[in-house]
Amino acid sequence: MKDWLRFSVAFWHTFRGTGVDPFGAPTKFWPWEDGTNSIAMAKRRMRANFEFINKLGVDRWCFHDRDIAPEGKTLQETNSNLDEVVKLAKTLQGNNIRPLWGTAQLFMHPRYMHGAATSSELVVYVYAAAQVKKAMEVTHYLGGENYVFWGGREGYQTLLNTDMEFELDHMAKFLEAAAAYKRKIGFTGTLLIEPKPQEPTKHQYDWDAATTTNFLRKYGLIGDFKLNIECNHATLLVTGCHHDVETARINGLLGNIDANSGDAQTGWDTDQFLTDTREATMIMLSVIKNGGLAPGGLNFDAKLRRESTDVEDLFIAHIVGMDTLARGLRYAAKLIEDGSLAKLIHKRYSSFHNELGALIEAGKADFEMLEKKAMEWGEPTVASAKQELAEMIFNSVL
Amino acid sequence: MKDWLRFSVAFWHTFRGTGVDPFGAPTKFWPWEDGTNSIAMAKRRMRANFEFINKLGVDRWCFHDRDIAPEGKTLQETNSNLDEVVKLAKTLQGNNIRPLWGTAQLFMHPRYMHGAATSSELVVYVYAAAQVKKAMEVTHYLGGENYVFWGGREGYQTLLNTDMEFELDHMAKFLEAAAAYKRKIGFTGTLLIEPKPQEPTKHQYDWDAATTTNFLRKYGLIGDFKLNIECNHATLLVTGCHHDVETARINGLLGNIDANSGDAQTGWDTDQFLTDTREATMIMLSVIKNGGLAPGGLNFDAKLRRESTDVEDLFIAHIVGMDTLARGLRYAAKLIEDGSLAKLIHKRYSSFHNELGALIEAGKADFEMLEKKAMEWGEPTVASAKQELAEMIFNSVL
Amino acid sequence: MKDWLRFSVAFWHTFRGTGVDPFGAPTKFWPWEDGTNSIAMAKRRMRANFEFINKLGVDRWCFHDRDIAPEGKTLQETNSNLDEVVKLAKTLQGNNIRPLWGTAQLFMHPRYMHGAATSSELVVYVYAAAQVKKAMEVTHYLGGENYVFWGGREGYQTLLNTDMEFELDHMAKFLEAAAAYKRKIGFTGTLLIEPKPQEPTKHQYDWDAATTTNFLRKYGLIGDFKLNIECNHATLLVTGCHHDVETARINGLLGNIDANSGDAQTGWDTDQFLTDTREATMIMLSVIKNGGLAPGGLNFDAKLRRESTDVEDLFIAHIVGMDTLARGLRYAAKLIEDGSLAKLIHKRYSSFHNELGALIEAGKADFEMLEKKAMEWGEPTVASAKQELAEMIFNSVL
Amino acid sequence: MKDWLRFSVAFWHTFRGTGVDPFGAPTKFWPWEDGTNSIAMAKRRMRANFEFINKLGVDRWCFHDRDIAPEGKTLQETNSNLDEVVKLAKTLQGNNIRPLWGTAQLFMHPRYMHGAATSSELVVYVYAAAQVKKAMEVTHYLGGENYVFWGGREGYQTLLNTDMEFELDHMAKFLEAAAAYKRKIGFTGTLLIEPKPQEPTKHQYDWDAATTTNFLRKYGLIGDFKLNIECNHATLLVTGCHHDVETARINGLLGNIDANSGDAQTGWDTDQFLTDTREATMIMLSVIKNGGLAPGGLNFDAKLRRESTDVEDLFIAHIVGMDTLARGLRYAAKLIEDGSLAKLIHKRYSSFHNELGALIEAGKADFEMLEKKAMEWGEPTVASAKQELAEMIFNSVL
Repeated sequence: MKDWLRFSVAFWHTFRGTGVDPFGAPTKFWPWEDGTNSIAMAKRRMRANFEFINKLGVDRWCFHDRDIAPEGKTLQETNSNLDEVVKLAKTLQGNNIRPLWGTAQLFMHPRYMHGAATSSELVVYVYAAAQVKKAMEVTHYLGGENYVFWGGREGYQTLLNTDMEFELDHMAKFLEAAAAYKRKIGFTGTLLIEPKPQEPTKHQYDWDAATTTNFLRKYGLIGDFKLNIECNHATLLVTGCHHDVETARINGLLGNIDANSGDAQTGWDTDQFLTDTREATMIMLSVIKNGGLAPGGLNFDAKLRRESTDVEDLFIAHIVGMDTLARGLRYAAKLIEDGSLAKLIHKRYSSFHNELGALIEAGKADFEMLEKKAMEWGEPTVASAKQELAEMIFNSVL
Repeated sequence: MKDWLRFSVAFWHTFRGTGVDPFGAPTKFWPWEDGTNSIAMAKRRMRANFEFINKLGVDRWCFHDRDIAPEGKTLQETNSNLDEVVKLAKTLQGNNIRPLWGTAQLFMHPRYMHGAATSSELVVYVYAAAQVKKAMEVTHYLGGENYVFWGGREGYQTLLNTDMEFELDHMAKFLEAAAAYKRKIGFTGTLLIEPKPQEPTKHQYDWDAATTTNFLRKYGLIGDFKLNIECNHATLLVTGCHHDVETARINGLLGNIDANSGDAQTGWDTDQFLTDTREATMIMLSVIKNGGLAPGGLNFDAKLRRESTDVEDLFIAHIVGMDTLARGLRYAAKLIEDGSLAKLIHKRYSSFHNELGALIEAGKADFEMLEKKAMEWGEPTVASAKQELAEMIFNSVL
Repeated sequence: MKDWLRFSVAFWHTFRGTGVDPFGAPTKFWPWEDGTNSIAMAKRRMRANFEFINKLGVDRWCFHDRDIAPEGKTLQETNSNLDEVVKLAKTLQGNNIRPLWGTAQLFMHPRYMHGAATSSELVVYVYAAAQVKKAMEVTHYLGGENYVFWGGREGYQTLLNTDMEFELDHMAKFLEAAAAYKRKIGFTGTLLIEPKPQEPTKHQYDWDAATTTNFLRKYGLIGDFKLNIECNHATLLVTGCHHDVETARINGLLGNIDANSGDAQTGWDTDQFLTDTREATMIMLSVIKNGGLAPGGLNFDAKLRRESTDVEDLFIAHIVGMDTLARGLRYAAKLIEDGSLAKLIHKRYSSFHNELGALIEAGKADFEMLEKKAMEWGEPTVASAKQELAEMIFNSVL
Repeated sequence: MKDWLRFSVAFWHTFRGTGVDPFGAPTKFWPWEDGTNSIAMAKRRMRANFEFINKLGVDRWCFHDRDIAPEGKTLQETNSNLDEVVKLAKTLQGNNIRPLWGTAQLFMHPRYMHGAATSSELVVYVYAAAQVKKAMEVTHYLGGENYVFWGGREGYQTLLNTDMEFELDHMAKFLEAAAAYKRKIGFTGTLLIEPKPQEPTKHQYDWDAATTTNFLRKYGLIGDFKLNIECNHATLLVTGCHHDVETARINGLLGNIDANSGDAQTGWDTDQFLTDTREATMIMLSVIKNGGLAPGGLNFDAKLRRESTDVEDLFIAHIVGMDTLARGLRYAAKLIEDGSLAKLIHKRYSSFHNELGALIEAGKADFEMLEKKAMEWGEPTVASAKQELAEMIFNSVL
């Protein structure tokens, strides 16, 4: 079961989440925090992280560069701060723990307010490149299995002041340079792009799996990048998490899942822990079809609700998250073993399992040939799609 | 102005719209209708169509095969019905009127309930091919400038009973065969795909401009197809019509616009006439940037509200639609002549207008070079995005 | 268990649902249908209804007047048609089966396109009154336990042509007259209003539980009416079914539940069978708190998906719906027996279980008294809300 | 025009808005800020506020208690800080400027994370009462014309841990005590409740105008309270701003408008300046029907976009907001003078302008009387609703 459930703790939510929201100040006052943003504090926090990971019995974690170490006055100083904390993390990791992935935080600082790779300011593009370069090095040093790009500010607020084509061209050049640098330093982890449809901008360029895949295809970046599908982001779409996971899968790009949950009806990002066993089952069905996610995994990119303020809540939340996905895996496996659902689907499409079906799929059935058949066969009869039966079968394993 | 505003009347809404909705029976009882679905009625209706087009002073129209002529007992009989009505239409068109585009209706009949090109039934794929073949021939015969594919049933209701990859593969083969047949018959019009995010299915495969473009790229269909962006469909997305028009444009695929309007907040397709001059102005800005839409145009794929039941309402609605787009064009032209908005955008991106900017855009600025610059330059300063100023400039031309 | 699960079959979906949608023609061709809308057909259909109910082992059904019998050329003839079919239904009901509720269909016919009680046409208000009068009589005759008002066309498409206050005043007068007539004929069933936020109009006046309660309070109709909460309608709201059920309950107005399901993300009404055991559990929690629903119940106001066309699908769908609600009831009961969740909530509010809490709740704690306390007590400390723990407890019973 | 456009500057957005969002740090660094939260800084900021108001030529402002003065270590110290700044504000107001309204900020501080009046903690209820008491006194002292309650944290995140009835009962007691205190201190301004459907909680109790009105009616608070409709909040509903303004108006509760704008399609609160002249025209139509808003007004509860960082942007944004509403007023007045739209509506409902219409509206038309009429009159005929014509008339004045 461990191979299918490659869980990871997200440093930012679990150790840097403060409970801030657009209308409220911090609510979390963890006992290990001293109120400063010093390197000493960064180290104490990193120790807390590994104590937590060890107690939880998980062997992967994820981080942004700026979560784990404070910015200095210059980029040089910032990099040196990062090195110091990363060194400690390397020691604390020991032999069993490593990053599922690392990433650069290119959205919090005001310098990135117009984007990073898509900023209207050259100097910001340049700065972002330097930051990603360092974050990739650090991820490599820690033995990270993947490296993620979430374009937090790559998007627009209004087309009235935006040159969308210019910005997308820049984003492509940036990612191209990142892939080149990956090869240069011998980092063999997967590069992942994490789609999100909206928020913080009105339109995020990496909208969803299909939109991002279109971007990768347009700019010749397929091959260098896969996708990290975040359930909570896909919930902001109309079609939801299972759809986006499947879209990534059939495009050969399913690299990792951020296994969290949003609210199906409110329009903002709540990054809750996934507790819905039904959704977990559907996701795990796709994971099984994908032959697993490795070297990707299931990252708990989830935060305690603002009103959950006990240290034990951190444990409770991760445990319910792990339990939900484990149940999802068991239910999905049961569904596959049972075979009824697969049989239902196989039967639905069985009319294509013949010579003409093969010709069509080989691109050898032209319209004239097909018209002749249509004239010959007359009015089609079509079978029931049996959705309610499929739902009954699905429910039967829960 | 006429070259920019290539208006078209949509036969289906204007002459076959009955006012039916999911909770209500027909409300329109036009004086020329006799309550039958005969060929004689189809011809009387076609005459009404051209009387309307002539009175309105428009010179284009759009149609589905099944709207203009009744189905017969066999496909042979159906085709012959279609031929008879099309012949009359050819005469009535005269020298000045022609189809902006034609299309096949592959969604109303129960045979298409699981899709046409993506149906789980081979016999339906075959039937659909025959139907599209004929519709392309007929469009060609009438001098149509484009041919449209709206995948009304190409999508799914639940992934529980669906093989999405199988269905998308079939859709690609179908469109490939359509493009081959187009070349074979010497039809030189553009083939257009019309995206729609949802409805009637939970997920329509041609979701939006980016999703559809991804599909075209994946299956090597770019070059053979462009997009028909329907505003009302894009409203069902979060980003809206202007975004989808621009996405099509910068992918080189903006072929036609279905100039209607949806409700920004309800989640279903209302196909209203576009009366919002602000939205019309933004759309026409994109049309101007695109150098116009020809051989595409602006199709009034819009229907009277169910409660509008006077014959004069048909005129009023088209006139307000034309007037809105004409005002949009004038405002957009004024905005361009004024130049303030273009200047604001140009200034925003001006930091890239130098040697390093050129290197970046040429893909020659690697991460090591950029890191050196970042270290040298220090903390970036970034300018205001001036959104409110852009909105003030926009408002000033209305 | 039977007393808590007062299931009802909805005649309209199960026996009049054709599979029509805004883009598609009928797909259901049941063997007992002969394609006519005759009285003979209405009777055969009614027999099929009772055969189905008996096979399913349910003892309640719901109907619209116009579903069970065809309209005649005049209201007199229509009423006489209705009487004939109702007489048969009375016989077929026997001793064990009766209507959970009856209602008048005031939305399909074009005469109702501007509303029934809120129509801009006096003659329609008058006609609707006559129709409701008869439907109430018929429901009474059949031993119906409730009578429902769903204001299918009571709403507006645009405020530009609407006098909302005028229309709401009329709706109140109409309902007042209905309540008076109920008393007059000695019908002792509950009158229920069924809220729905949107569709078919942009704004339906009976938007949700709170909006409808406001209407009832404004016009002095509380006491005469309760609410029928339809899950699928509440899904169209942002807060969802459980919220609306609870809102009705705490206003003392929870009378009946239409136990169906919508899609959480698409914006239109799908009226699916409820198959989500989590949602069912939450609903049943409220039902238990309400002490059950009697004389109301759980009506399967749900239809087969358009693509489900086998007769057995009718059974499968109802069985999965019943099974889901039965599991929901069992899980809810387990949750209540377990007591952990109730304890968590009790503890959350326990600071009010004292003298000052009592004063506040009695309206005897004025701002000056409270300010003194605040000055004395200093900065409040607040406990964790334990949402993840609550979710873990909830999951533990599933 | 000034009497209809009682504009107000919102201190919090304009002087305390930092550009923070859930993914980003502050972006605004105004020259008058020194980075501290001292009283000296509070005073300098207050001077900037009045310099801005005077330059803008507006004579009203709105404030939260905690925006204008820093919290101290105790409530006593906090109150004394507030007094000091308020005294300065009183002087700076001079004879011409006064608060449109004041309010207490009961949502930012972590003590309010579970609500203020609806908190699960008694000590928080008590603290909130003391804070509102002081805020009302201060508003009174400054000559404020209204006092507003926005229940920023009055709502729930999940019903699993919430006793909704308990919380609503408490909210009612709290508001009752506030109204009593208002009378006690002789404050004659209007008490206003500001609805918002969601955010920061999943469900805000003051959801919209109808929901809030239901609450006021249930607890006997009508008479003491009116509503402050915020457009941006109403945009988060499906029906939008104009609907909620009209709902407040016909319930006799339209007290004030927060004249801002949200994004019609994203699901979070953007508090943008209103720049859509169409929406402004519809709002001003309601304002005119209401006979104006006094003693309420039009508060610019709007913030610069995060990316707008120039001091001049503050002016530009307010100017485009004022200009938009002024154009809206002019267009609405033109629409009313023109009379065509009013005539269209009058004609729609004219069938009720007779004896039977009067009987119905007097509640004297019972179902038996109406049935007789229906039998006598036969099938109703109904007129077109002329929505497209109404839209054409609307467009004609823009």
